[in-house]
Amino acid sequence: MKILIIGASGTIGKAVTEKLKANHEVITANHNSGDHQVDLGSKASITALFEQVGPVDAVISTTGMARFGTLEQLSDADYQLGLDNKLMGQVNLVRIGKAYLSEGGSVTLTSGFLAQNPMPGSISLSTVNGALEGFVRAAALELGESLRVNTVSPVFVTETAQAMGMGTEGTLPAEQTANAYQASIEGNMTGQILDVRDYV
Amino acid sequence: MKILIIGASGTIGKAVTEKLKANHEVITANHNSGDHQVDLGSKASITALFEQVGPVDAVISTTGMARFGTLEQLSDADYQLGLDNKLMGQVNLVRIGKAYLSEGGSVTLTSGFLAQNPMPGSISLSTVNGALEGFVRAAALELGESLRVNTVSPVFVTETAQAMGMGTEGTLPAEQTANAYQASIEGNMTGQILDVRDYV
Repeated sequence: MKILIIGASGTIGKAVTEKLKANHEVITANHNSGDHQVDLGSKASITALFEQVGPVDAVISTTGMARFGTLEQLSDADYQLGLDNKLMGQVNLVRIGKAYLSEGGSVTLTSGFLAQNPMPGSISLSTVNGALEGFVRAAALELGESLRVNTVSPVFVTETAQAMGMGTEGTLPAEQTANAYQASIEGNMTGQILDVRDYV
Repeated sequence: MKILIIGASGTIGKAVTEKLKANHEVITANHNSGDHQVDLGSKASITALFEQVGPVDAVISTTGMARFGTLEQLSDADYQLGLDNKLMGQVNLVRIGKAYLSEGGSVTLTSGFLAQNPMPGSISLSTVNGALEGFVRAAALELGESLRVNTVSPVFVTETAQAMGMGTEGTLPAEQTANAYQASIEGNMTGQILDVRDYV
């Protein structure tokens, strides 16, 4: 398969790229590096990316910006960043990307377990992740077998927790997190929220 | 309790108002009618509403605009309407309202079963409803016992289905839908997504 990975330079993205390139042709896109550059917050940038890359069999997004902060701390602009970037950026990968994806192809987005398991300061993330789950279920229903759409819901990645000096209980290494993306790409499911802990 | 109901003129809002006014002081707010008027899409309008109403023990929202339409039909503006109005409008009821709510008070929002059970054309609704669920869980975690935050997830209301000439299988009359709002107000739960079918 020809697979476009957006956010390939991130901790999860690198692990997904590594895992998939053994059996697939992988094209990487990041904000500032990779085979191509893309700004997920810009529809024009997403369209330009697909125009450059051409037809693909699968798109994986392991990226999207949203801001941590408490109810007191988050500004209107903070909420809007998450809605514009991590939410609508990934929604727009489906809206724009479907014209470039092969029949029966797939898009795999990234939400996160904070949707169901909030922590102090996760309000914007929990909101956006919940939104992505609703989107994926509804988009998959409409698209049927023409284009599969799933989202992977990662827990905290062990490497990130270590880098931030947090405890690693309940975390999962990036290499194991990447299994869920591979399952979404190589399997037949659609409209699913893939809990990374089910793919270890 | 002194309860502010926003969207009191809607099918669900009327039933909730009717049910709660037997034992509580109910103040109604709608877009164009009721004791007060409010535009949920405007933070200034929400602030003005709370300034007019003053301290309350509970806020219920049974409103919020979002647009039906398929992946092909929905424009950027259609998605933004749902995010600005049904999502951030209700989020802003918590952000702004908490300064006017009594200690241990509650806010009850409205999401909907389309979050988990999409239908063709529900993409924006499913996205927004999923977002509201994530928000409520995270906001409740932060607010603890100071302010309870829940969302009621209605199925299609029987009266609405009849008015639209749809089948009524799986629908619930507004009067029974209102039970979940009463449970949220009078109970002790927080961070919950109340499935109306559990309160019949």
